[in-house]
This record gives sequence, structure tokens and C-alpha cells, in this order.
Amino acid sequence: MMFSTKKSLDKILQIYKKEIRRQISKTTSVTNSDAMVPRLDQPSSKPAQNDETGLPKKLLKLQKYHRYLSTLTTQEMPMATRGLAVSKDQSREFMACFPDIVRDLTETGKHIDVPEASKWLAKLLQYNVPNGKKNRGLATVLAYKMLEKKENLTPENIHLANMMGWCVEMFHTHQLLLSDIMEGTEMRRGAPCWYKHPEVGLTGINDASLVQAAMFSTIKRHFHSKLYYKTVLETFNEMLIKCSIGNFLEFQMNKTDKPDLTQFTMEKYEAITKYKTSYHTFQMPVTLALLMAGVEDPETHRQAKTILLEMGEFFQIQDDFLDCFGDPAVTGKVGTDIQDGKCTWLAVVALQRATPKQRQFMEENYGSSDPEAVAKIKQLYEELQLPHTYSVFEEATYDLLRTQIQQVTRGLPHELFFKILDNIFRRSV
Amino acid sequence: MMFSTKKSLDKILQIYKKEIRRQISKTTSVTNSDAMVPRLDQPSSKPAQNDETGLPKKLLKLQKYHRYLSTLTTQEMPMATRGLAVSKDQSREFMACFPDIVRDLTETGKHIDVPEASKWLAKLLQYNVPNGKKNRGLATVLAYKMLEKKENLTPENIHLANMMGWCVEMFHTHQLLLSDIMEGTEMRRGAPCWYKHPEVGLTGINDASLVQAAMFSTIKRHFHSKLYYKTVLETFNEMLIKCSIGNFLEFQMNKTDKPDLTQFTMEKYEAITKYKTSYHTFQMPVTLALLMAGVEDPETHRQAKTILLEMGEFFQIQDDFLDCFGDPAVTGKVGTDIQDGKCTWLAVVALQRATPKQRQFMEENYGSSDPEAVAKIKQLYEELQLPHTYSVFEEATYDLLRTQIQQVTRGLPHELFFKILDNIFRRSV
Repeated sequence: MMFSTKKSLDKILQIYKKEIRRQISKTTSVTNSDAMVPRLDQPSSKPAQNDETGLPKKLLKLQKYHRYLSTLTTQEMPMATRGLAVSKDQSREFMACFPDIVRDLTETGKHIDVPEASKWLAKLLQYNVPNGKKNRGLATVLAYKMLEKKENLTPENIHLANMMGWCVEMFHTHQLLLSDIMEGTEMRRGAPCWYKHPEVGLTGINDASLVQAAMFSTIKRHFHSKLYYKTVLETFNEMLIKCSIGNFLEFQMNKTDKPDLTQFTMEKYEAITKYKTSYHTFQMPVTLALLMAGVEDPETHRQAKTILLEMGEFFQIQDDFLDCFGDPAVTGKVGTDIQDGKCTWLAVVALQRATPKQRQFMEENYGSSDPEAVAKIKQLYEELQLPHTYSVFEEATYDLLRTQIQQVTRGLPHELFFKILDNIFRRSV
Repeated sequence: MMFSTKKSLDKILQIYKKEIRRQISKTTSVTNSDAMVPRLDQPSSKPAQNDETGLPKKLLKLQKYHRYLSTLTTQEMPMATRGLAVSKDQSREFMACFPDIVRDLTETGKHIDVPEASKWLAKLLQYNVPNGKKNRGLATVLAYKMLEKKENLTPENIHLANMMGWCVEMFHTHQLLLSDIMEGTEMRRGAPCWYKHPEVGLTGINDASLVQAAMFSTIKRHFHSKLYYKTVLETFNEMLIKCSIGNFLEFQMNKTDKPDLTQFTMEKYEAITKYKTSYHTFQMPVTLALLMAGVEDPETHRQAKTILLEMGEFFQIQDDFLDCFGDPAVTGKVGTDIQDGKCTWLAVVALQRATPKQRQFMEENYGSSDPEAVAKIKQLYEELQLPHTYSVFEEATYDLLRTQIQQVTRGLPHELFFKILDNIFRRSV
């Protein structure tokens, strides 16, 4: 019975979520839709239209929290830009395990007949694995500590969780090494991309395989005798499928020099985001932590997955928003999504709302590296009130996710999800 | 006791093997070493020197079988160029399973929210997986049929072995897709390389990941409930490490435009060959078949591995020889190892034997695409009597491997190894 109640709640939340989406996108065919989403911070010039939009009361209420994310201070930076808010001790504990990872993989005796390969692998790992935000690795350890029974939180088990965290980081590094080559990225984490080094180049592809192999080797070393070993291997393999499909879907949109805006639909956007980001950034750490804590119940995993994929989608939307409207001094990077012609949430919503003339304008300017074109696109986004829409969407999503977290059963600690949520929205829960 | 006898035999064989090698390489510092290895098919101009070389009697005896491989007819082509000599029925049985692999991976319902990814994966697999010689896949099925008890050779188990064979082929395809990109290869199996298609390019890197993911997915689908499932996954992961190390070692030698001949040593050559080829081409199919037949005894696996890695090394040496001296009408391909500046067995032995002047000549001409330079290198190889040396080496290796096979214990069927040997040497056993 509880299950069926849960199911109806799920359904209601889905309907609610669809309604928010509908509000954002319904104006596609409307000539000028600037004012379709009411803005409470500015007196609307067309107040009558507000009633016509039939916005759910809830959504209207949420807008009292409205604020622009572009005014964020460092303390308020979302996870997209600053890393998981774990304690300094936890971060230090995690970093302290990295030399073990490298030593285990490169120690003499293991591949003694090829010492130069060991040396190279050490260099490769040190340059590429530990210098990012380590969100995914830290989230794995955090989740494990929250999911495991107190009495099982032994130093050995905590060490194991840190090892698993590094495996997740190696998985992510493998993905980054390959996508940097495919996308021609210049810089990564403040340093030249690995393949950009003259002695690397396209052999960076093989280095990515080396990192993946190192990951499998580390998993085997530490988890070989565990009951959940098989499922852990399957999880990593499953994540490989998801990420590869996500990359494929994204490349499909960038086959020509000019982005094909007819492909920029919300469905496509959601599929890319889910496959390319949500699975391995949000679901993976919690799934692995659940397995380490001995939880195999499929319904528990399903519940966690549902909510984490939702969070992943919002995370990406926020990332897209900040790429355009975030303050580089705060986010630490200058966005290039418009220049790159990426299928972002902003571009999709803009196209949904654009008049034929505005669409024509997008066609002509989106994906151009001309600074004037970029500025014009941003201006169009503002004309279409995307910062406001985003802000409303953010509030609504936050509320929705809170409600969803409260529905989570099966002994899943709500605090875990709130903690992750908190890290995205960066506000006290 | 049997074990210690086995060990001493191993030792003797190793010494014998070393002696062959020494005979090939000992002349490095000799001014002109053309006649160091006696040629029984041509009257030697320096018969006295034959005695001085102290060639083992066995080796001298073997030379009565001497023949040039360059005169091979199609029927005599070694495995390197013609595929495993399995029956037509077996080949047909294997091919008939391929559509199942594709359908299982791309059927609606599995990734229903991204049908375009399914469609792409089907195309990717069909273009790249089944059009090669399928040596490794066929060897897996062959080995399983020879290793499994008669009563267990049910249609279900045979089907499983074919599925495993395709997983080995997908593993190999993953490797090929990546190395074609890294090496800038133009053609593969008579068709343009996958990444050469204008709609693919560098996104072929992600397609390689898709093939790898498809492999893991197929393994899970068919072997999930088997006791050996875990070990099978580990075997594939281990092979990934080996191949990546092999690629790394090879790239190390080609870091600059000009090949660095000081790196062309027999030790380097042997390490590259073992990691890049022998493991996944020879050890992998038999290891997987052993696991499927329920054999987990480490000593059995060790014995099989030792002999299969030896075969792998010879296989590569043969491949190198044929690249230069094989008849393209017979081998089906025009070799480019000299132009590509590859570290081949021929180049290594040539450098061991070259006078300082000849070495200088190699430095100037090896790795050049100028047809005249290539012809001159070939001429030098002939001056150094490499075809003869190869021929002697081939006979000695064949004999050595036969002896080793006869030493194999632990219920490993000698016929299996003879069959593989036969496929390399293409003579009746």
C-alpha cells in the first residue's frame, strides 16, 4: 500500500514538473512571449496575461524567493563551480589516499618488465586525476559515511570508501581525457589539457585507456573479495554505456560547422544531460555507496536513482545558466557555450519562445565566435527574460526536489539527498 | 616430482631458445656478419666459420627444412594473413550469431528513449566488428569445443562460446578503432577506416567506447549468472591493461618524426609484442575457453599462458617478415613497416648485425616514404641475409614449440596447441 501511495505521489510530482516545463515552453508559437512568465520583482506591463497563463498557485508563490543567480557571491556558488561542500578534514583524508592509489598501480614488481610504463602511468595519473573539484569522489565517500551503519564505519571501511571515490574520479578522468581530444579543448583545470603536451598528442587516447585500466586494476585490488564486487564492476560498465550514449547524442548535434537549431528540443536536451552528466555525476556515487553499505534492494536503488537524475538535470541547467550569466570572477571560468554552439537549456528555451524573426536571428548568430554576435545572443536571452525564467525554474525545482526527498522511503537517509541538494542550491536546508 | 621435471625441461628449453637468439644477435660487433648463420641451401663461401659459430647440432639439423616464406602460396599462408583454419561450418556458425549480438544490443525497449543511439550502434558494429579475419573469436570457440567435456557440449553452451567469441572480437575492434585514429591509418580490411568517414572523425573515439560498452553489455547478458563471470570480467580488464601498455611502449619509440634506432633492441621488441599482441590474440581466447570449461587451476592457466605467449611472439615476427618479404598477391596487403619506421624484428636484427656504415645507412633511410629508400632498406636486409635467418629461426621455433606443447600437463589437450601452432606454421602436425 505504501508503494502505491508512493506511486501516486510520484505521479503528482511528475504532473507538477510537467506543468512547470509547460509554462516555460508553451509560448513557442506566441508572437512575443516576453511577459509570459510573470516577474514579481518588476511590475509586469501586461498583468492581464498573467492570469491567462494559468500558472499554478504554487509556482506564483515560489517567486517570492526570486533572485538572480548572477549576483551570487563566492559563498553562494553552486556545486557546478566550487566542488562538494565536505569538511576540510574529509577533503584532506581523500587527498591523502591518492599517493596509495598511484603507488599500488606503479610499484615495482607489478609490471617489472616495463618500468617506463609504470613511470609514465604515475605521471599521467598525477597530472590528470587529483586536480579537479573531485565532486564525484568526495560524494562517494560522503554517501558511504551516511549510508553505512555506525558500527561498520571502521578505518578499513572508510579507507575502502576513499579508494572507491578515487575509482570514480579515474572513471571521470577517462571521460575527460577523451572528450578534451574530441572537442579540441585547450585548458582543463587551469592547465593545458594532457593531449596538448607535445609529447602526448593523439596518444592521449591510449593514455585514457591506461587510466581506465588503472581504475579496473584498483577496483580489483580492493574489492575483489567483496560480495558486491560483481555489481560494482557492472555499475562502472553501465556508466560507460551511459556516458558514451550521452557523448554520441551531443555529437549528433554538432556534425556540421553550424549548429542545427531544429535539433535543439527540450527532449534532446534532457536526454543528453541525463546520459552525459546525471548518471555518472549523481547516480554513480550514491549507487556505489549503497552497494558498499550492503544495500542491494532494487526499489531502494530505483528511488535513489530517480531523485538523483532529477538533481543531475537541474545541475546541468544551472551550469548552462552560469556559463552565460554567471560572474566569471565567481564561477572561475569564462563561458563559451554560445560560441561553441552548444545545445544549452538557455538556447532551447530561447528557441521555444522566439518569434520567427528572433529565431532567424539565432540561426544567424548562434555558434559564432564573433564577440558582437555573442553579446547579441545574450541580449536576446535577456529580452526573452531567460534570467527571470531560470530563477523561477530554480525555485520550483528546489521545492519539487525537497518534496521528492521527503517521499523517499526504504531507509534512505533524507539528509544525504538534502546535503547533495544543498550543494547544488547552496542554501541552508 | 613431475613438476620439477617439467621445470627442468622448461629451463632447458629456455636455454635452447636463448641460444637461438644469441646466434641471431651475436654478430652485432662483427664487421661483416653475412655468413654467421650457415645456409645449407647455398654452398657457404666460408665453411670453416660454420664450426666456429658453435651452432647447436639441433639447429643445424633443422635447416634441412629450410625454405623461403616469400614463396608461399595461398594454401601455405600463415595465420597472420589468412585467418584461423577452422571448418567452414564453424565459420558459418560463428557468423550466424552476429545478428543476435546486434539485435540484443539495439532492440527497442533497452534504450528506448534514444532510438538514434541504437541505430548508430547497429551501424557501428556492422561496419567494424564482423569484417575481419575473426581469428580471436574463432579461436575462442575452437578452444572451448576442445576443452569442454563432450557431455557439456550442448547447443546452449556452444551458443555461449560463440557469444564469448564475439566479445573477444568486440574487444579487438575497440583496440583497432582507437589505434587507427592514433596512427592515422587510412584503410582497414579493404574499406576506409571508420574514423575516415566524414561524419565520424574524432568522434570515432567515442564510438570505440560504445563498442567497449557493447562488449561489457553482451558479457553481462550472457554470463551474468555463471560462476566464472567475475573472472571473465577481470580477464577483459587485464587485457585492456596489457594492450594499453603495449601501445604505450610502441608510441614511445615514435615520439619524433624520425624513428630512434637506439631504442630498437630485442628486449623492447619482445615487450611490445607481448603486450600489444600476444596476450589478447593468443592467451585471451584460450583463457576464456578454460574458464567456460570450468578450469580455474592457476597452474593450468600458467602453462597455457607460457606457451601461448611464445606463439604470440613468433606470430608477430612472422607478421613482420611477411610485411617486408611476403608476396602482396598472397598476403593481401602491401607492407609499410619500413616507411612507418616501425620497430620490427627485421629492423632489430638488422641493427644487431649492421656494420657502423650499414647502421648509418639505416639511420638515414629507415622510416622514409621514398620508394628508393624503402628498396635500399630491403636490399640491406637481404645483404644481411635476414630471409635466411628468419627461415632458420622459423624452423627452430617450430621445433621448440612442438617440444613445449608435448610438455604441457594438467589435462590440457595437446591438440589444441598443435592446432594453433599449425595455424601459424601452416603445415600438417
